[in-house]
Amino acid sequence: MSLPIHIGIVTISDRASQGIYEDQGGPAIRNALEEILSSPWTPIARMIPDDRSTIEATLRDLCDTQNCCLVVTTGGTGPAKRDVTPEATESVCEKILDGFGEQMRAVSLKLVPTAILSRQIAGIRGKSLIVNLPGKPTAIRDCLLAVFPAIPYCLDLLDGPYLTTKDEVVKAFRPKK
Amino acid sequence: MSLPIHIGIVTISDRASQGIYEDQGGPAIRNALEEILSSPWTPIARMIPDDRSTIEATLRDLCDTQNCCLVVTTGGTGPAKRDVTPEATESVCEKILDGFGEQMRAVSLKLVPTAILSRQIAGIRGKSLIVNLPGKPTAIRDCLLAVFPAIPYCLDLLDGPYLTTKDEVVKAFRPKK
Amino acid sequence: MSLPIHIGIVTISDRASQGIYEDQGGPAIRNALEEILSSPWTPIARMIPDDRSTIEATLRDLCDTQNCCLVVTTGGTGPAKRDVTPEATESVCEKILDGFGEQMRAVSLKLVPTAILSRQIAGIRGKSLIVNLPGKPTAIRDCLLAVFPAIPYCLDLLDGPYLTTKDEVVKAFRPKK
Repeated sequence: MSLPIHIGIVTISDRASQGIYEDQGGPAIRNALEEILSSPWTPIARMIPDDRSTIEATLRDLCDTQNCCLVVTTGGTGPAKRDVTPEATESVCEKILDGFGEQMRAVSLKLVPTAILSRQIAGIRGKSLIVNLPGKPTAIRDCLLAVFPAIPYCLDLLDGPYLTTKDEVVKAFRPKK
Repeated sequence: MSLPIHIGIVTISDRASQGIYEDQGGPAIRNALEEILSSPWTPIARMIPDDRSTIEATLRDLCDTQNCCLVVTTGGTGPAKRDVTPEATESVCEKILDGFGEQMRAVSLKLVPTAILSRQIAGIRGKSLIVNLPGKPTAIRDCLLAVFPAIPYCLDLLDGPYLTTKDEVVKAFRPKK
Repeated sequence: MSLPIHIGIVTISDRASQGIYEDQGGPAIRNALEEILSSPWTPIARMIPDDRSTIEATLRDLCDTQNCCLVVTTGGTGPAKRDVTPEATESVCEKILDGFGEQMRAVSLKLVPTAILSRQIAGIRGKSLIVNLPGKPTAIRDCLLAVFPAIPYCLDLLDGPYLTTKDEVVKAFRPKK
């Protein structure tokens, strides 16, 4: 019997969480994941302000209680004062995977030189992978496609569920032992 | 009324600060900034030894008292025992922007394979951006040109002064909201 | 009189250290170094489990007591729970050289998208350079060739022995002063 696939989608934005403007990041992540995944999966969405302890509590809940194998965030990764998503992510993770941030910045850098301002990271908490994505909807899809080929194997290594992808969108890579 | 633009230029070198040899890094930064910027600006130059607490005190003074929106350092980023510029920079910054170091190493790596030995970083202290550049004058210009397109927008996000650049040298990029 | 060149080769694997399967990483490192180096050198090999304090003690011994100018590890750099080689390496080093990890991941990424899962780092302990390599024998050679051009100059900066390489395999780069 296969494990259920729960994926956390966290919009981190003072203004979106106050209803000042509409959340575009969360739906953009959901659309990109629907485009990528062939496994059945259940999204668990949250919308929260740029507050470090709220972000940490939300990530812990999604990983530990909601059993999300993957948690994807949008927003709060820039250099501005209220941007604290990477700090919150790092503090709830046991391991940081620097290659994710490097790869997402490298991909974004081909499009905009301000990609170097993004501090997005990815890390492991228990059996969950947490990945920060940028705030802009167009950049979300680019970054997710860039790192997704490695995500199913990463979850295998964490004894998580077996994810399958639509090969014409993303080819999941699993090295031969 | 626009904010005055003060830019700190810090030469970090035991030998240059003792007068054993002439400072070439500081003037190389100043020349590169004159080539890049079309905004009027005032350089605030310092020359100090490779001493961690002196570097930290100098960076704090330039950011907090001299109101430099940008502080650029040269020297002390290698693997040798006396090289402590990145440690000092990290300890006075609230946020580190990994993309700057990655991008500067990637650019230098096209020229010399020893670029991977450079530990240069960039970070935010309050409303100031601090960027470590290499010690060698030729590498200073290459690295500054590589990251400068993102610097004006970074300062916008920190509520700093509005920097303009000479488009034929560096095209500042400001994403549309 | 030139300094003797001792190089530590550390296989980090629960199963190899229990004899469950044969160590392939250690011999792969030794073969790659024999291919690269023209200086005479002495390998000092260790095989240990994925246990953080054992890894730290082994690295300290190789650097401080065995006087290895270079220590190369294989294994334990992934996202799985037992993978703790980067944590152990970081805790015994005074300086981390981010460019090594970036460059090794960039090289591996051309071959496999799962390269972003590797957390391998390099750092300085006293006069020794410690470099984490991947666990897979084929990836070991690729990564070592990618960073080796910078290693002899790095050891020069640490007042270590003068390494020479076979130019047709790896061209050591020493910048002119």
